[in-house]
Amino acid sequence: MQFNALVNGHTLVMDGPEKVGGENNGPIPKPFVLTALTGCTGMDVIVLLRKAGKHVKDFVLKVEGEISPQPPIEYTGIHLVYELNGDEDLQEDVLNAINNSQENICGVSKMLKRILPLTWEIVYNGNQIFNNKKNHILEDISG
Amino acid sequence: MQFNALVNGHTLVMDGPEKVGGENNGPIPKPFVLTALTGCTGMDVIVLLRKAGKHVKDFVLKVEGEISPQPPIEYTGIHLVYELNGDEDLQEDVLNAINNSQENICGVSKMLKRILPLTWEIVYNGNQIFNNKKNHILEDISG
Repeated sequence: MQFNALVNGHTLVMDGPEKVGGENNGPIPKPFVLTALTGCTGMDVIVLLRKAGKHVKDFVLKVEGEISPQPPIEYTGIHLVYELNGDEDLQEDVLNAINNSQENICGVSKMLKRILPLTWEIVYNGNQIFNNKKNHILEDISG
Repeated sequence: MQFNALVNGHTLVMDGPEKVGGENNGPIPKPFVLTALTGCTGMDVIVLLRKAGKHVKDFVLKVEGEISPQPPIEYTGIHLVYELNGDEDLQEDVLNAINNSQENICGVSKMLKRILPLTWEIVYNGNQIFNNKKNHILEDISG
């Protein structure tokens, strides 16, 4: 069941788990949608900070996708967690870079926002400095 | 700019090209959306044929994404080409498996169809036996 995908000159292996007849030689395909999202917005943030002559020490992006209960199984919601560490005076730049990526630059975010609620939170030096997941749920209830 | 993505136990490398400050150590992120699509529908087809006790000799999937002219750059159309080789009497099974994946099983296809025209063609033993791209364009005109 293994597929070797050639993507701009690089080969990626995809495979199914053993339980569906694969050999688990690579990731299953569907989460690549989430991978595209993290790479897209993550690189935006790095590029925006670099352009301003700034950089963070660590940057970890976590992503969680809710899936539909019945096939065809698709994502019905996505939540991103941006975890960064760096100088305290970079906090505002980090907030602005992530906001800029989410609102103006990241095409994968824009595509996904057309079909599902995409929320994100930002943890800087261990402190949560932004989270629109709660707001989003409240909006859903009021709507 | 390199990101190492951990996806169900497997690590994928993403990177930007040199011109935007990356080192080209891995694919850029956005096409992972297309990779997810090819892996999803490709594995469906293999699984469906296996369940029927059948298999093809070769299977290549090509995918082409149209992108928006302005940022945020998103896909605005996708065309898949399924190229398979195998026994002549499998042609109908192949057609049915791909149709079943596209209409009923592949969650990535379903997500993408919500936001863009997704078309596909099937080439079996070198002969094009299905193509809904032309139909799709005609539908667009008549609509």
